[in-house]
Amino acid sequence: MAASHEPSGEGDLSVLDRSGADPAVTTCTLHVCTTCRRARADLPDGYDKPGAALAAALAARIEGLGTAIAVEAVECLSVCKRPCTVALSGEGKWTYVYGDLDPQDAVETLIAFAGQYGASPDGVVPWRERPEIIRKSVVARIPPLSTARPAR
Amino acid sequence: MAASHEPSGEGDLSVLDRSGADPAVTTCTLHVCTTCRRARADLPDGYDKPGAALAAALAARIEGLGTAIAVEAVECLSVCKRPCTVALSGEGKWTYVYGDLDPQDAVETLIAFAGQYGASPDGVVPWRERPEIIRKSVVARIPPLSTARPAR
Repeated sequence: MAASHEPSGEGDLSVLDRSGADPAVTTCTLHVCTTCRRARADLPDGYDKPGAALAAALAARIEGLGTAIAVEAVECLSVCKRPCTVALSGEGKWTYVYGDLDPQDAVETLIAFAGQYGASPDGVVPWRERPEIIRKSVVARIPPLSTARPAR
Repeated sequence: MAASHEPSGEGDLSVLDRSGADPAVTTCTLHVCTTCRRARADLPDGYDKPGAALAAALAARIEGLGTAIAVEAVECLSVCKRPCTVALSGEGKWTYVYGDLDPQDAVETLIAFAGQYGASPDGVVPWRERPEIIRKSVVARIPPLSTARPAR
């Protein structure tokens, strides 16, 4: 599984869009891949890119709620085969990557879970408190940076 | 693909071991999963856990080289089905997760690539400069924390 959609290194690697709460109070960030393709036999191209719709729906819903969750549209999370794909990260917390998310059905679950995640000290929400979608869709998790940061 | 080996939330979630260079000069960290099982029909249990050997080999080789790369043995990276699994992260850099790594063959490649990664400003090594193993084994990548951090 090569990262076929990741830019080659010569292209634009920038994050496409950032939105969300004041960085000083943001508890976590939902990074939404807007690049990966979902097979859609009913469309002329045979696929769509559902990530942009998911990112927009998350941002709109969060704005209405006024919670301290940021949403970031990202060009590629290198998962590619499991759209929609979302990463959840926060300062000092474990990072989680989720795939196979439905762009409509996942919105409320992701926001509620991001709230649980943001409220936890290390990002590790107890297994039994995780929604079913979150349990089933995990792609990877990564520890927070710690040894790589000067003590202060 | 549920994270079947991730502790349930009641168990010990701590990082098992940390080693490596002085945090103040560490350029990046290789997080090695020591939990996931590799099928081994020749063994009584039918599997081994190759991550611990990979983590030990990386730490020993890095100590000999004196490079500013930290190695961290981690209980679970939630990839589970693709041992060995390693995450590469650094302050202000994209995080990458790699799977299907051979515990012997991957050592030199990982150390060399971690050097390229550590020397890059954002962790994005140009595609053509990435070793074949690194290109083929990517599981996911995650942007650095930015909006989630107060500007300073």
